[in-house]
Amino acid sequence: MKPKVVLAYSGGLDTSYCVKYLKHEKGLEVHTVLVNTGGYTADELKKVSQKALDLGAESHVNLDELEAYYQDIIKYLVFGNVLKNSCYPLSVSAERVHQAKAIALYAKKIGAEFLAHGSTGAGNDQVRFDLMFQLLAPEIKILTPIREQQLSREQEISYLKQHGVEMQWEKAKYSINKGLWGTSVGGAETLNSHTALPEQAYPSQLTELEPKTVELLFEKGELIGIDGMGYPPVAAIQKLEQLASPYAIGRDIHVGDTIIGIKGRVGFEAAAALITIKAHQLLEKHTLSKWQMQLKDQLASTYGMFLHEGQFLEPSMRDIEAFFRHSQEKVSGSVSVGLAPYRFVLQGVVSKHDLMNSDFGDYGEMNKQWSATDVEGYTKIVGNSMKLYQQVNGTLC
Amino acid sequence: MKPKVVLAYSGGLDTSYCVKYLKHEKGLEVHTVLVNTGGYTADELKKVSQKALDLGAESHVNLDELEAYYQDIIKYLVFGNVLKNSCYPLSVSAERVHQAKAIALYAKKIGAEFLAHGSTGAGNDQVRFDLMFQLLAPEIKILTPIREQQLSREQEISYLKQHGVEMQWEKAKYSINKGLWGTSVGGAETLNSHTALPEQAYPSQLTELEPKTVELLFEKGELIGIDGMGYPPVAAIQKLEQLASPYAIGRDIHVGDTIIGIKGRVGFEAAAALITIKAHQLLEKHTLSKWQMQLKDQLASTYGMFLHEGQFLEPSMRDIEAFFRHSQEKVSGSVSVGLAPYRFVLQGVVSKHDLMNSDFGDYGEMNKQWSATDVEGYTKIVGNSMKLYQQVNGTLC
Amino acid sequence: MKPKVVLAYSGGLDTSYCVKYLKHEKGLEVHTVLVNTGGYTADELKKVSQKALDLGAESHVNLDELEAYYQDIIKYLVFGNVLKNSCYPLSVSAERVHQAKAIALYAKKIGAEFLAHGSTGAGNDQVRFDLMFQLLAPEIKILTPIREQQLSREQEISYLKQHGVEMQWEKAKYSINKGLWGTSVGGAETLNSHTALPEQAYPSQLTELEPKTVELLFEKGELIGIDGMGYPPVAAIQKLEQLASPYAIGRDIHVGDTIIGIKGRVGFEAAAALITIKAHQLLEKHTLSKWQMQLKDQLASTYGMFLHEGQFLEPSMRDIEAFFRHSQEKVSGSVSVGLAPYRFVLQGVVSKHDLMNSDFGDYGEMNKQWSATDVEGYTKIVGNSMKLYQQVNGTLC
Amino acid sequence: MKPKVVLAYSGGLDTSYCVKYLKHEKGLEVHTVLVNTGGYTADELKKVSQKALDLGAESHVNLDELEAYYQDIIKYLVFGNVLKNSCYPLSVSAERVHQAKAIALYAKKIGAEFLAHGSTGAGNDQVRFDLMFQLLAPEIKILTPIREQQLSREQEISYLKQHGVEMQWEKAKYSINKGLWGTSVGGAETLNSHTALPEQAYPSQLTELEPKTVELLFEKGELIGIDGMGYPPVAAIQKLEQLASPYAIGRDIHVGDTIIGIKGRVGFEAAAALITIKAHQLLEKHTLSKWQMQLKDQLASTYGMFLHEGQFLEPSMRDIEAFFRHSQEKVSGSVSVGLAPYRFVLQGVVSKHDLMNSDFGDYGEMNKQWSATDVEGYTKIVGNSMKLYQQVNGTLC
Repeated sequence: MKPKVVLAYSGGLDTSYCVKYLKHEKGLEVHTVLVNTGGYTADELKKVSQKALDLGAESHVNLDELEAYYQDIIKYLVFGNVLKNSCYPLSVSAERVHQAKAIALYAKKIGAEFLAHGSTGAGNDQVRFDLMFQLLAPEIKILTPIREQQLSREQEISYLKQHGVEMQWEKAKYSINKGLWGTSVGGAETLNSHTALPEQAYPSQLTELEPKTVELLFEKGELIGIDGMGYPPVAAIQKLEQLASPYAIGRDIHVGDTIIGIKGRVGFEAAAALITIKAHQLLEKHTLSKWQMQLKDQLASTYGMFLHEGQFLEPSMRDIEAFFRHSQEKVSGSVSVGLAPYRFVLQGVVSKHDLMNSDFGDYGEMNKQWSATDVEGYTKIVGNSMKLYQQVNGTLC
Repeated sequence: MKPKVVLAYSGGLDTSYCVKYLKHEKGLEVHTVLVNTGGYTADELKKVSQKALDLGAESHVNLDELEAYYQDIIKYLVFGNVLKNSCYPLSVSAERVHQAKAIALYAKKIGAEFLAHGSTGAGNDQVRFDLMFQLLAPEIKILTPIREQQLSREQEISYLKQHGVEMQWEKAKYSINKGLWGTSVGGAETLNSHTALPEQAYPSQLTELEPKTVELLFEKGELIGIDGMGYPPVAAIQKLEQLASPYAIGRDIHVGDTIIGIKGRVGFEAAAALITIKAHQLLEKHTLSKWQMQLKDQLASTYGMFLHEGQFLEPSMRDIEAFFRHSQEKVSGSVSVGLAPYRFVLQGVVSKHDLMNSDFGDYGEMNKQWSATDVEGYTKIVGNSMKLYQQVNGTLC
Repeated sequence: MKPKVVLAYSGGLDTSYCVKYLKHEKGLEVHTVLVNTGGYTADELKKVSQKALDLGAESHVNLDELEAYYQDIIKYLVFGNVLKNSCYPLSVSAERVHQAKAIALYAKKIGAEFLAHGSTGAGNDQVRFDLMFQLLAPEIKILTPIREQQLSREQEISYLKQHGVEMQWEKAKYSINKGLWGTSVGGAETLNSHTALPEQAYPSQLTELEPKTVELLFEKGELIGIDGMGYPPVAAIQKLEQLASPYAIGRDIHVGDTIIGIKGRVGFEAAAALITIKAHQLLEKHTLSKWQMQLKDQLASTYGMFLHEGQFLEPSMRDIEAFFRHSQEKVSGSVSVGLAPYRFVLQGVVSKHDLMNSDFGDYGEMNKQWSATDVEGYTKIVGNSMKLYQQVNGTLC
Repeated sequence: MKPKVVLAYSGGLDTSYCVKYLKHEKGLEVHTVLVNTGGYTADELKKVSQKALDLGAESHVNLDELEAYYQDIIKYLVFGNVLKNSCYPLSVSAERVHQAKAIALYAKKIGAEFLAHGSTGAGNDQVRFDLMFQLLAPEIKILTPIREQQLSREQEISYLKQHGVEMQWEKAKYSINKGLWGTSVGGAETLNSHTALPEQAYPSQLTELEPKTVELLFEKGELIGIDGMGYPPVAAIQKLEQLASPYAIGRDIHVGDTIIGIKGRVGFEAAAALITIKAHQLLEKHTLSKWQMQLKDQLASTYGMFLHEGQFLEPSMRDIEAFFRHSQEKVSGSVSVGLAPYRFVLQGVVSKHDLMNSDFGDYGEMNKQWSATDVEGYTKIVGNSMKLYQQVNGTLC
């Protein structure tokens, strides 16, 4: 009986090569697995499945991890308003980490001796896969044929042909990674620092020109309704994406530090992710204290860094999540968002926890619960330490 | 000889009332001063000056503080990419703090016994004026007629009429505060949480529909050129505003915590400020290390908080500025920005300090200076602490 | 029927004056209350009670809040290893905040119209009392006779004599505040910056010269055992104090910023608090990840600041507590501490969650789970970003 | 002509083996170098030099880097009060990083083709050497015979004997690393978590029993005088060590995370370092604002982490240093420190920049520059946000 290998399979050339290679050169029983975190239609899943089997996989499974993915990671990215470098919703990072987790657990379940992924040696994914595999399945050996062999596309295609595979392997002009939390877009333009992606590089094209307002309902920090209709959070995000992506909203280019230490640049479109985070953040501005927001921001920066770098299992991440969960107790209410071509506008919130309460005092209007004397006193006391500094040092600067 | 009072004068009803009141009721020699931080045309300044004298001021000066304002504060808001609550460029906070400083120094220069401002008791400005006045001119007593008397508009107008002033005092539908770093807009809509400002509330209307690209040149963090033409930073910001405001770019509503502790909401338009900060931040993503950005962000949050709350003279602010200055050594290069109605798009950068250097390795392409083995080693070592945690505790979550 | 006032009563001159004053000058029915947070013996409590009644209080209660005090605050000071300015366990801050809370709730319970405390206008306590009273009993008016009248000791004594009170009011050379978490000591020496407190200023004198080792047992961050004997946390802290204070351990002088903005200096002795925190921290060094410790430290600094400044009810404090609680899951084990005159030495820990696990690898001994190649790879990857910086900028400094 | 290798040489068995190995097996011209960062006497340096030549080194140099070491690193450790895990002055980390730098620059100067160090594959030093070598001399190849060959002591001694070396190689019971900033002590006891080091493990024994007070003079954060006598900082630290080490002050055991990810434990004695840092910190408590201290602490934590992990050349380190330098402008004055067996006591400070200024107000005594009304006003305003939270949410907890 041949030893089993579980291979993270996407249907692309690299992982297709791996199926053949692991079976023929390594003599393994290849079990392919695709983890769907929101990027695949039923039809696409079926095709990938068939492809794997055609290539000689002993079995293929498509794991539907959408709900678990949301509960594990996405929920906390919303709670923390996590945007890497004030820009990117970390969609690929989050997916890869969760996919690696699901695959490792699957490999343990079917008693595999090997885990394989098709990442190259140049990017972030190899680290995310390796780290999660090592930690969740330390007893299983990791194989990375693509990273080790560094073959060209032509070499891989030629190898497949030699083994009787007559599929077509076109190189797409843009490399796309799609999921619940956004779609990344890489291309020739993102390999340098100065060129923008052309309109057609983005999967979602502008088809809707008429502005529209949507009402997003949050309950304890989670998106649970749109325009008066309730949804579970995953469905709400999908619905929002469906409403907003025809406006070509949420496109940008992320520039950041790879785990490897070099700078990288990647385009993305993430209408639902960006609108959800920005609407959630606005609701927090109305319902949290200044210090809650400040501390959340600091923790979110660490949370995003570790997620990005594949260190999702660092124990401090669970402590941060405890903070985030607790902070969301009052983050409930609705947010109006205007959608228009290429942009959205936050219009306002309604929340029973809204701290901008006109019974207490309107900003800039006459105060009700404190007097001029109170503010004078406040200012005097706040100024004391600086006044002292000045008296002692003769200067304040 | 009557004692002198220096009054911060804007030409509005409140401070006009103060001129009369301080002269007639308090028997003071009133010297009015307006600090221009970029919000007034020469013509407007002339009118304000005449108005002050007409009201009975002994003297009026318009202090041109634009360059000093930039050097003191705005420069650091760019270095720190400071946007309060990820949104607001702190234009009013910065102006008020600098105006208070200039006025206090002027009062000392002319030997005034009193300093007066026309802030109400409900907002942030009273604290900013009081704090700066107290600290920079502790020997001068502060008068705040508006805060103390809490008169209605009608009462003020009536008082002025009684003293022979026959000017027109219309209440504008929106209260506007304009300066180099943006224009704030308050109105009935911003007194609640859920309504957006209408199009016409904004001073700059959309007049330019044709998209355009501008090239912004930065030198050590400062904006010093646009489209190939060199400018001093203040002129560069003004030029950028002139190019971008016809697109109605940079509008938003800021929701935040007032110094007084209540939540406040205010609209603003700040095309140049937002474009400058976002372009500068993109340039930093290419030229600074991951940790420089992370530490800068943390310090910027504190810097913005103290500036907003009028604690500009807190000694730690000068230490933060030293950090910021040092961090900008390599932040030089140009940034392309696409302008379009209501929005702008960062297109890319060119910099000799760009760390995204294709000689070293392209992200996602084949690596040149490290091997698969290096990354495997890296991952193994990075995973050690978590692996240990798992071995000891039997779980990672 | 006279309106009721609840007065925070300590038995000292200031609050004794308040009893008389509130009854006779204000015509109130005075209900005195003392909140015991560990500083009073049964005998002392009885005496304070009698004194209050002798002075004319309608009723007096001693609230035993020791357990609630621990659960509310002290527990989190241990979890966070909170030492203000790396020095002071915040014993007075914690007590005053909890006392104010207990008193406010008591006043609500008995339907008082007024709440009174005897703080002066110079220190921190007035702010702590006022803030907690205002927030927990906003409907009850606060009276502060001492702060308002600014009487001298002689004036207070004379007033009491006039009203037939013939008690003795000696001014102690040192003002002492004792509680579960330590004893503060103020005196002439602490009013300047350069003199130390003399030996006799400290309540606990050195009586034990023979060094001894104690074993402290922690369970999820809480001290629950000493030398093999189990105790509830409060009793464990008291037992530890009893063992350690004869060594005159835990004395120091705290220098810090008062809420009012001036610097203050106060002596303290806090053997149990310091040993508990330092032993707990050592246990954390063995059981938490590097990042858990780093994040905890940052949050602890904020937690200590708000507690010190009476802002215990700031909502972010509850979020920090959620983080702290979660972080303590594995902080269990025993710590050996050597006691000696004036000092203690942490000797080591035993914990089943100890991450210093010799099966994995001994520091400095031959590695078992990674190779030289792994470390070389790690170092290469970690160095990449700096190498790039150097290549681009020609220098690293 | 043989290619040159520069070898970091300590005189110990491992690096002596390297001399022979690199010469005979690798055919290199071996140039040994020892970087003195304060741990060697003139006599010891001479002996090491002779030993290297006896073993066959082509040349040996002892680089006196004490002053540069202080200026590069130690100065900033004082400015930042850097104690790793609130405990350890990072003496070994700082030394190794600076030694690596000096050696790399020396290798470049003499045109070496190789750089060699004798670190094993288990500890931190290998990473520090590799990182600094790679970054400062990227053109020079690194050799690490000890890490690669993993020989036992016996094998190394046997190899040396075979090559005619008849020296004695006793294994010390404790491995000692001495330098300006402290001495580390490793032994069997520090390989587990629960045993303390015995008295005799520490190089400095208790010889002075009579308590004594020393006056430390700081100028802009640097120690420049002791007991009225001026010294350059390095000499001042050495003088302080000489005064304090006979009291066996500054011993402790550091528990921390190695770069490799495992926990490590090491004893140390560092009288001068600990006294300097704690005295400096006390002076800062008197001369800096609350926020300066808070921000410094946060940056110091990052600074210590990167130094410990050999990432001294991370660009953010230079920005932090700029902050630190600026923050020290007013940190001048003298600190009295009491020395006694095994401990020291900070007694007080005298500084013209002392913010604890009795002309302004004494803590706890009657206030002079503000009134009860001011504090009431302050408290009311500070409480506003929490009051609002309570009104809106019906609870504060």
